[in-house]
Amino acid sequence: MTDTEVSESKCDVLIVGAGPAGLMMAAWMARCGINARIVDKRGTKIFSGQADGLQCRSLEIFDSFGFADRAWKEANHMIEMCMWNPDEKGVITRSDRLPDTPVGLSRFQQIVLHQGRIERFFLDHIKKHSKDGIRVERAVLPESLHIDEAACDDHSPDNYPITVKLRHLTEDEAMPAQSKGSGVGDGLFRSNLAEDDTEELISKSREKEGSTETVRAKYMVGCDGAHSWTRGQLGFQLEGEPTDYIWGVLDVIPITDFPDIRHRCAIHSATNGSLMVIPRENKLVRLYIQLNEIKPDASGRADRSQITPAVILAAAQKILAPYTLSYKICHWWTAYQIGQRVGTNFDFKNRVFLAGDAVHTHSPKAGQGMNVSMQDSYNLGWKIGLVVRGVVKPEVLSTYGAERRQIALDLIAFDHKFSRLFSGRPAKDVMDEEGVSMEKFKQAFLAGNLFASGLSVDYAPSLLIAKPQPDTENNNTANNQHLAPHIPLGMRFPNAQILNQSSARPLPLQSLLKSDSRFHIVLFAGTPTAPAQAERLSTFCALLTSSKTLAPHLHTHIRILTVHAAPRVDVDLLRDFPDVLHPFSEETGWDYDAVFVDERSFHEGGGTAYEGFGVDRERGCVVVVRPDGYVAFIGGVGEEGGRGVERFFGGVFVA
Amino acid sequence: MTDTEVSESKCDVLIVGAGPAGLMMAAWMARCGINARIVDKRGTKIFSGQADGLQCRSLEIFDSFGFADRAWKEANHMIEMCMWNPDEKGVITRSDRLPDTPVGLSRFQQIVLHQGRIERFFLDHIKKHSKDGIRVERAVLPESLHIDEAACDDHSPDNYPITVKLRHLTEDEAMPAQSKGSGVGDGLFRSNLAEDDTEELISKSREKEGSTETVRAKYMVGCDGAHSWTRGQLGFQLEGEPTDYIWGVLDVIPITDFPDIRHRCAIHSATNGSLMVIPRENKLVRLYIQLNEIKPDASGRADRSQITPAVILAAAQKILAPYTLSYKICHWWTAYQIGQRVGTNFDFKNRVFLAGDAVHTHSPKAGQGMNVSMQDSYNLGWKIGLVVRGVVKPEVLSTYGAERRQIALDLIAFDHKFSRLFSGRPAKDVMDEEGVSMEKFKQAFLAGNLFASGLSVDYAPSLLIAKPQPDTENNNTANNQHLAPHIPLGMRFPNAQILNQSSARPLPLQSLLKSDSRFHIVLFAGTPTAPAQAERLSTFCALLTSSKTLAPHLHTHIRILTVHAAPRVDVDLLRDFPDVLHPFSEETGWDYDAVFVDERSFHEGGGTAYEGFGVDRERGCVVVVRPDGYVAFIGGVGEEGGRGVERFFGGVFVA
Repeated sequence: MTDTEVSESKCDVLIVGAGPAGLMMAAWMARCGINARIVDKRGTKIFSGQADGLQCRSLEIFDSFGFADRAWKEANHMIEMCMWNPDEKGVITRSDRLPDTPVGLSRFQQIVLHQGRIERFFLDHIKKHSKDGIRVERAVLPESLHIDEAACDDHSPDNYPITVKLRHLTEDEAMPAQSKGSGVGDGLFRSNLAEDDTEELISKSREKEGSTETVRAKYMVGCDGAHSWTRGQLGFQLEGEPTDYIWGVLDVIPITDFPDIRHRCAIHSATNGSLMVIPRENKLVRLYIQLNEIKPDASGRADRSQITPAVILAAAQKILAPYTLSYKICHWWTAYQIGQRVGTNFDFKNRVFLAGDAVHTHSPKAGQGMNVSMQDSYNLGWKIGLVVRGVVKPEVLSTYGAERRQIALDLIAFDHKFSRLFSGRPAKDVMDEEGVSMEKFKQAFLAGNLFASGLSVDYAPSLLIAKPQPDTENNNTANNQHLAPHIPLGMRFPNAQILNQSSARPLPLQSLLKSDSRFHIVLFAGTPTAPAQAERLSTFCALLTSSKTLAPHLHTHIRILTVHAAPRVDVDLLRDFPDVLHPFSEETGWDYDAVFVDERSFHEGGGTAYEGFGVDRERGCVVVVRPDGYVAFIGGVGEEGGRGVERFFGGVFVA
Repeated sequence: MTDTEVSESKCDVLIVGAGPAGLMMAAWMARCGINARIVDKRGTKIFSGQADGLQCRSLEIFDSFGFADRAWKEANHMIEMCMWNPDEKGVITRSDRLPDTPVGLSRFQQIVLHQGRIERFFLDHIKKHSKDGIRVERAVLPESLHIDEAACDDHSPDNYPITVKLRHLTEDEAMPAQSKGSGVGDGLFRSNLAEDDTEELISKSREKEGSTETVRAKYMVGCDGAHSWTRGQLGFQLEGEPTDYIWGVLDVIPITDFPDIRHRCAIHSATNGSLMVIPRENKLVRLYIQLNEIKPDASGRADRSQITPAVILAAAQKILAPYTLSYKICHWWTAYQIGQRVGTNFDFKNRVFLAGDAVHTHSPKAGQGMNVSMQDSYNLGWKIGLVVRGVVKPEVLSTYGAERRQIALDLIAFDHKFSRLFSGRPAKDVMDEEGVSMEKFKQAFLAGNLFASGLSVDYAPSLLIAKPQPDTENNNTANNQHLAPHIPLGMRFPNAQILNQSSARPLPLQSLLKSDSRFHIVLFAGTPTAPAQAERLSTFCALLTSSKTLAPHLHTHIRILTVHAAPRVDVDLLRDFPDVLHPFSEETGWDYDAVFVDERSFHEGGGTAYEGFGVDRERGCVVVVRPDGYVAFIGGVGEEGGRGVERFFGGVFVA
């Protein structure tokens, strides 16, 4: 058979896979104005099942794109976590209630919404913001990859070192067997108990007259899941081993007398295995059910054919006894084998990158998979975008692997510990050394809760994080953490309620840090009515506008947000703040959305930003925030701080 | 010429006019499942200008339909009101700052968003909820109305006493002159300075071969504006007179050094007239500008041709001096003559109703027009809906005119006073008796602010409001206001933060009162763990389920929301609450969204509902809420309260 070669074309970035990691990448490409393509081998997007937990940090990121409110409105909100354990007679009983999200951690709490809706929010966002009309090309998959290694280090704009041959499938070829008419969504075909079908799809298509095209790209990102074709082409491995634990998943509307069915529950039965309850939207509940009676065979993998919804339900009923459980409505079900694996490499020569399940896989119960995967490409996308646009140095691309591989390792360690504690039989008493101590499980849950929120991420020093290297006390890098002790360098910029100086509208400061590809200078201006501070402010602003490093980038690649601490009614935007802080436009006048005040609002509290961050109310400080919201630099308001900002951006921006 | 008679058809309700009042009516028709039609003489919806203020009560109503969040997100939020008056030298200076919305009044504060977006939210909502496919039929207007008066009192389901001939215009005929190519939106054609064009549209269409159809309807609602054709057909009048005050309106992106341009401002200049600043979304500002130099002619109406954007801007510049004002971008402009008029009649034999500007007109500056208009049809829609469906007695229709005419009179009185104080020259000193005292203006503003929020509405006793008649102390109607002193009978049900008993999710109680055409019983169950209260609760629930009046309507036309005051962890949904409070479904199990608790949440406060409402924590009380959210009845939990609820619904429901 002869394939029809449709065309040969170029794009800046080719994204393989349109799950959450790929869509996050595409969202950045849209916001950065990059000519990108995103392909997916499946013919349709997800309609049910799959991942569903959204952590605080993911919601903060969604908010920076402008669609957290859609998720927040549609989702089920998980508030309380209940722990159920065997009592002395072996009957399950509630042993603890805990807040599901630690109090005060974020503007958001953990919520649950199925992956299909989250993909919808991304698709809408990409459509709205992409000037080049980026859209997911479905039923398209790569079948060959060639990298011109010698050209990888040449970052001139007309260099396309990556050549990929893409194959276009027919609708029928691209439709997973499960989607062809089954009433209930069966997710087994995507489970880690199933073989990957990529090679089969390609070879079947080759047998007929398929169509292919050749794409040349500057960068490529493999978001193509645990069986990643991209990873395979690069010859990289996932390291780690599966366990013997097999779990089933049911998405049902339960009929039950179990009292905590609308809470998240971790239930350890005495001898029948464990169960996790995840209440969802529209009366649905997801049940993760340990299948004690299913064991891996000699190949190390469980036989899929033994697993049916009835088998999973029966296991759940045994665990939940004496409470009853049945259902009339099942939306989706699947099963998987617990295992933790992490990629050896996250990129090839800073040209081809791997993100999401392509570089780390683990058990789904901690609600981490989709979140960490999206956060991988959230870390990577703006870096590629600004390199392609010639704004930042290609060296920043090295920070992706350095920053995200550590997160993947932490995730794997957390999941390894948590999943074994959860899958293990509860100890009968303190003498039962083979059993799992329920107190130990609770402590692991509490410790893991902060990690699981996504808010403990703390990136190491690099050209993007100006904090001292751990082993070099007299590092040249500015260590001004003391100017804002509660805005930790390397972590995401925290939130506080502030007011717009001109309209008095209360706003979360964090909500101003939009994912629009700009760095932010958050200028805590202190008290500009104090003459000495007005002088420092003036010096700092003069330096910004006169600096050859900074001036060309102001407002285009660096947005300045000012938060002062004087009484709102004592200051005037035009009189008390240098023009660069509220720039003038011939068309639309002064910018009234750039200067804010730390003052209590009439209706919504606030007024404790300086106090909460530990910033001096008179002298303030300067914080540089990366386009992904992580704290990059802290300095003082004035000459020295200005020089520090200049030095930081001098290391990042192309001269 | 001969018209083409397209067809003759029937519908339950015919709505004339698709502005905010008509769309609100259509929204109710969609939610009540009524076969309704809505026609509008214009060919397109509003794209710029027109009304823009949304009051707290309107937002609460939008939330009951589920789209307040869209308005809240897109709108500009007005937080502070600044008063500017002449100082002793006659130069304008800021004399006061006040919260624009009184603190603690509502979950919402006043916001500003242009009418076109609000109409969009309604259109989307109607499309989503209408089973019969209700959609606005544009370029369609009535040209004759016949009412079979003898048949009006016969409410049998196959009686259609109203016959209307509808004329279908061509696109060109239906397009206002202004929309045909002008770059800047000119709203004069819709202003009260312009003549109505309805008769002209009809007669022009008649000259050619137009098409018409005949519709027979059970009910008709005229939402067709100040020049209401429907009102004219009924022979009803608007009573009142215009003033000599002419005002211009500019929607611009201002270029100015006036410091409060992003606050709502009332500016009285010494001798050049007054100006109101209404900051809007997308950098726009609406300026209401008194045109001192334009006077009505002998006919009592000002000459439109004298009024241009340049004339209006010049007037604004004089008022604002010494501050400067100019603009490059103008979205819309208009002018109007202040006057207050109110309709003599709100309905004809409870078959044809008038709502909105068709029965009350006034000056736009108080931001009342669209709000009061929408609230007219919000009062009326569910009544017509439930009468058509045969659920409630036709007598409830009489409450529309009784309830809303009083609101219109209050509005007119408020506007009469406020617009004269605002248009008057400020007093030079206390001896200047012809001038307006600025202190008096401020007091009028403060007094008017509560009224303007829409939250002071207090409907009089009727079969829908079980409170004592003012003149009859020993009225048979239950007077149980003391059981919930802060849930006033006749007013909208107030808000408090509560938790879902089963999921611990915090929610505003008010947000549970959906506009889905059902009455609500808010059952403050008190402390069901106290044996005496458990007994009372059981008695009350047994009465609900055994009552011939109530039982057939439970869950379908009456939804029960329970809020108890016991510690959440001490009670169990299935054990402590009778089944009727959380009904069971064979398909979907127990209802977990019907029982709530007054307890503090982990993340969002709350726990003060009983205290705030003044309800006894052990004994609780029962509150019946109308489908539009107004408090209809209060009683105790137990036999007597149950009988009271039965009596109330006995007066309302068709036996």
